[in-house]
Amino acid sequence: MAALARSVLVTGSNRGIGLELVRQLAASPRPPQHIFATCRDPEGPRGKALQELAAQHPSIKLVQLVNLPSIRGAVRAVGSHLKDQGLNLLINNAGVSSHATLRSLDSREIALVSLLQEFLPLLEKAAKGVGKEGLSCSRAAVINISTKLGSIGLCLKVPEAPMYPYRASKAAQNMVTRCMAAELQDKGILCVAIHPGWVKTDMGTEKYHPLGQNSVQGILTVLANLSQDTSGAFLDWEGNTLPW
Amino acid sequence: MAALARSVLVTGSNRGIGLELVRQLAASPRPPQHIFATCRDPEGPRGKALQELAAQHPSIKLVQLVNLPSIRGAVRAVGSHLKDQGLNLLINNAGVSSHATLRSLDSREIALVSLLQEFLPLLEKAAKGVGKEGLSCSRAAVINISTKLGSIGLCLKVPEAPMYPYRASKAAQNMVTRCMAAELQDKGILCVAIHPGWVKTDMGTEKYHPLGQNSVQGILTVLANLSQDTSGAFLDWEGNTLPW
Ligand SMILES: NC(=O)c1ccc[n+]([C@@H]2O[C@H](COP(=O)([O-])OP(=O)(O)OC[C@H]3O[C@@H](n4cnc5c(N)ncnc54)[C@H](OP(=O)(O)O)[C@@H]3O)[C@@H](O)[C@H]2O)c1
Ligand SMILES: NC(=O)c1ccc[n+]([C@@H]2O[C@H](COP(=O)([O-])OP(=O)(O)OC[C@H]3O[C@@H](n4cnc5c(N)ncnc54)[C@H](OP(=O)(O)O)[C@@H]3O)[C@@H](O)[C@H]2O)c1
Repeated sequence: MAALARSVLVTGSNRGIGLELVRQLAASPRPPQHIFATCRDPEGPRGKALQELAAQHPSIKLVQLVNLPSIRGAVRAVGSHLKDQGLNLLINNAGVSSHATLRSLDSREIALVSLLQEFLPLLEKAAKGVGKEGLSCSRAAVINISTKLGSIGLCLKVPEAPMYPYRASKAAQNMVTRCMAAELQDKGILCVAIHPGWVKTDMGTEKYHPLGQNSVQGILTVLANLSQDTSGAFLDWEGNTLPW
Repeated sequence: MAALARSVLVTGSNRGIGLELVRQLAASPRPPQHIFATCRDPEGPRGKALQELAAQHPSIKLVQLVNLPSIRGAVRAVGSHLKDQGLNLLINNAGVSSHATLRSLDSREIALVSLLQEFLPLLEKAAKGVGKEGLSCSRAAVINISTKLGSIGLCLKVPEAPMYPYRASKAAQNMVTRCMAAELQDKGILCVAIHPGWVKTDMGTEKYHPLGQNSVQGILTVLANLSQDTSGAFLDWEGNTLPW
């Protein structure tokens, strides 16, 4: 199997789904050449598991990503590692907690849009790479980790606590994903929203599934199969289409 | 034809769609007994057209509504007019402009959720009214004026300027509508999101349709026909269901 992508960036990679994504990418039979693992404090105690993982895999580079100024620093750091290559795959996983307040909503969306704006030149460079046609993660892609709770259509059927702010924030994020998909298609960049399943992380509850096979392995299989036809879609970790 | 509702509150009613809603409600053959027309500055020059309209129709009461403290004041004012009756119909029309920035997003959603929270006792009181069964605007309902641009599903097909913040804000609002519909159904309160059509207001462009027949008359007909089956739906002014 070909590598999913030559270079991948994963946000919120110090724990939970992000950390497991980095772990499985690095351990895959044909790992990406560059795995940029970003988090808010890669040097600190909250980055410990990620530091240990990076020590085992030279492909993993830790990059700090907090706010707008640090996004620009991250773009420079990533760019200098990639030299004349672009960034193929940006996985936007860092998530507001389900206890978010409405006031914390906008900063999340600003982060998402700014992140994309700042990394766009590197994604465009990757999309223009020799022999690249159609849309795929190996060419250039933005994956936004969403949630089934962000599906407006399923809202009446997912009888969890209402969690208005979390749901509203993820619905807004889904809209941004879809706008981006429309805008970036002609530049050769694919955009997709993915529900990772219900998994046991600091966010998911104890009742949920373990991270590895059920969720992250599924996500990576879905990513490998994305194409023109699925850009702008809302998929779960098994590849099923979810209603908006 | 029976009155749409005994009491109605319309936000953002000093101009555009809100003003026309108040005008047509007041002029209808069986007008509501109480029409609460809210806006940010009912006494000021921006409230002039509304003041003139209210002078012709004693059913129209002007109520100021700006921020959280003023919501509480508005609830008290409305409650004292209604005496022992509840509020049947709350039409949340006041809209962020399409030039909203991401930073202005959350205040909009806070406003929407707070507005509902504060008016909930009056809506519940109306829902409990004698002989009221099923869901309808004449019993108790919240109508959130949305937009086709807030449809994530149609996003790739509505080739307007991307307007990420406006679209994201309205998608978040649609999620809130749907969460409310789920939560309030058992209390006898109906919730619906409505796209008013493309109409010539300060927000809509010159190319759009005139306000009256095309949009507002359509909305009022749709409202009169809402029921249990349509609670939680996203409809346009002609009653067509829109994808989320
Ligand atoms: N777990 C589930 O069942 C589930 C279900 C559906 C969707 N999801 C989605 O999956 C994604 C990952 O969730 P998870 O379960 O892995 O959660 P998690 O274990 O709580 O990890 C969240 C990650 O996001 C980072 N993060 C949180 N808020 C941030 C902010 N404001 N700025 C920057 N980074 C921030 C955290 O960094 P710090 O360590 O610095 O806080 C951490 O790396 C999220 O987008 C979530 O919505 C999860
Ligand atoms: N016109 C269209 O073609 C169209 C299409 C789709 C959806 N819509 C929706 O229809 C609704 C009404 O739009 P419209 O065309 O009638 O717009 P409009 O003519 O620009 O009127 C907007 C109204 O909302 C109020 N408003 C705006 N921002 C506010 C805020 N932050 N707080 C409180 N009040 C605020 C305004 O009050 P001030 O006078 O105090 O500013 C005004 O009363 C909006 O929800 C809009 O999204 C309109």
